[in-house]
Amino acid sequence: MTEYANLIHLPKPPSIAAWSSTVGKKEGDGPLGKCFDAVEPDSRLGQQTWEQAESELQKRTIRLLLEKSGCKPQDLACLFAGDLINQCTSSTFAIRGSDIPYLGLFGACSTFAEGLLLAASMVSGMDLPRCAVLTSSHFSSAERQFRFPLSYGGQRTPNAQWTCTAAGAALLTPAAKPPYVRGFCIGRIRDAGITDASNMGAAMAPAAADTIARYLSATRTSPADYDAIVTGDLGIVGSRLLVQLMEQNGYDIRSVHRDCGVMMFDPARQDTHAGGSGCGCSASIICGYFLPRLQCGEMWNVLYAATGALLSPIICQQGESIPGICHAVHLSHETGKER
Amino acid sequence: MTEYANLIHLPKPPSIAAWSSTVGKKEGDGPLGKCFDAVEPDSRLGQQTWEQAESELQKRTIRLLLEKSGCKPQDLACLFAGDLINQCTSSTFAIRGSDIPYLGLFGACSTFAEGLLLAASMVSGMDLPRCAVLTSSHFSSAERQFRFPLSYGGQRTPNAQWTCTAAGAALLTPAAKPPYVRGFCIGRIRDAGITDASNMGAAMAPAAADTIARYLSATRTSPADYDAIVTGDLGIVGSRLLVQLMEQNGYDIRSVHRDCGVMMFDPARQDTHAGGSGCGCSASIICGYFLPRLQCGEMWNVLYAATGALLSPIICQQGESIPGICHAVHLSHETGKER
Repeated sequence: MTEYANLIHLPKPPSIAAWSSTVGKKEGDGPLGKCFDAVEPDSRLGQQTWEQAESELQKRTIRLLLEKSGCKPQDLACLFAGDLINQCTSSTFAIRGSDIPYLGLFGACSTFAEGLLLAASMVSGMDLPRCAVLTSSHFSSAERQFRFPLSYGGQRTPNAQWTCTAAGAALLTPAAKPPYVRGFCIGRIRDAGITDASNMGAAMAPAAADTIARYLSATRTSPADYDAIVTGDLGIVGSRLLVQLMEQNGYDIRSVHRDCGVMMFDPARQDTHAGGSGCGCSASIICGYFLPRLQCGEMWNVLYAATGALLSPIICQQGESIPGICHAVHLSHETGKER
Repeated sequence: MTEYANLIHLPKPPSIAAWSSTVGKKEGDGPLGKCFDAVEPDSRLGQQTWEQAESELQKRTIRLLLEKSGCKPQDLACLFAGDLINQCTSSTFAIRGSDIPYLGLFGACSTFAEGLLLAASMVSGMDLPRCAVLTSSHFSSAERQFRFPLSYGGQRTPNAQWTCTAAGAALLTPAAKPPYVRGFCIGRIRDAGITDASNMGAAMAPAAADTIARYLSATRTSPADYDAIVTGDLGIVGSRLLVQLMEQNGYDIRSVHRDCGVMMFDPARQDTHAGGSGCGCSASIICGYFLPRLQCGEMWNVLYAATGALLSPIICQQGESIPGICHAVHLSHETGKER
């Protein structure tokens, strides 16, 4: 690989000027419950269908972002958004009626990192004043699309992850104050041959290891240079595999590795098996937990490596294995230009 | 709207250094048949399923792009790709195994323009040496996902469009030779309340009118300043509506308007009703027909306004109307910096 494929520096590291997060009741009952801006007690959010509920979740999250930042919709040069639902309609219907220029993404659970790196590039490289990112997932819309009808009451396997009802949004602006986006690494598809759609952590771990190792190597940094290397969302099974794969690459990440899927729930108390997942899982935890710490200087450097399992039900039915991808974004309390 | 939301200039207009197009037999039999790099006689492309066939179509198209440009996969800093199939698996499985850094997009039939504007931004703003775009559609994979099983033999309505079996790819590099990408306008979602999923032209026309009018107004240009204003893919019904809507906006585009959905087929001979559609329709026609003309100077300025109907079957079943979007990209024989 050529150098630029492993590390893309932002010439003018943009600020993440504002962020917002909204989660469902179960996520609010988890260990991070107090970190989020809003916990929605009604999983339908007052809507008639799960798909409409997920759109409403995005709508409330972008509204919160605009409120917190003091921006109007017309102040945004563009909004990158995506979700897991077929044809990304959760995003479409959330943004419809807002007049915000919209670019749709699909990166499965890596979408928030994909949006962050693209929004950061548009602000830094194209001198746009304000770009935003918005992603969501909803347990019920995902469950029926990817697995079983909810009323079927199917048993979940031990490796299965729980799609979070959650959304996160962030606003990028030219450098003003921390946190900053310093650089990023665009993922390559890795496929370890996993065909069990209930074992997404294993399907995604090789992509995470590939991207994190490429970024560490290209930046000549070590895991100790980061307060946290945050994956989203390998869950308990995938996280163990990632640590092993990184060891094979010569990196010991155990002391700094955090996984959003693991952080979201208490499996003993919440029956969530291998942990959380979904485009909203790491989006809400980056916005609710990590960005505030990077802002105040409690953390200085976080490598956010969001993973996506690029599966569809039909491809699984056709016997294909599950390709994984991971995009890494370097979030920092400093621009890296100070010294 | 603020100015930057209507027109984003590329500080260093990148070149489209190479392009490739692959189509199916029916598209090859159409009026533009000789423009494409490859016509595939077997609609399964030697694969077992329609989804695999569409992936194979993308694979052959990116391979052609690399051959024509003399690039290796590892020369690409990133590849933007997308398609209509759930979870964009046509793209995923085409790119799997290639090691190319990959960013997934969803913009329905507007995806090629979305990819072009993002790749152009990454080359121009982030100084990446080579970024590529790749999109596809396949009649049979789309038909069974969005409409009816093929073997059902359902009647098509007069307004219906025919999803093209087609793919297009383009390589963007720093400015070297024509054609160039000069600037672009990111679309806003417009929804005219159309609930008939067989009338996508009508659903998308308002978005096309919005984006084209915003770009013309922001650049203080008139339709006569372009050799062509190319929509993709409004079809016959949507094109008529666009001309009317533009008239209401004070623009007469009749003499320069071309629509890729209309251009692809001969409806009298090919029974394609309102025309072609799909992520591969305008991608293959831009690459097969317009870029060669912009390269040699037969055309100097083309405003490529690709439209997408952001529908999903489940949202239609829930009674929702169909939101449309349109991204415009200004393609030119000159960088605009010469004068």
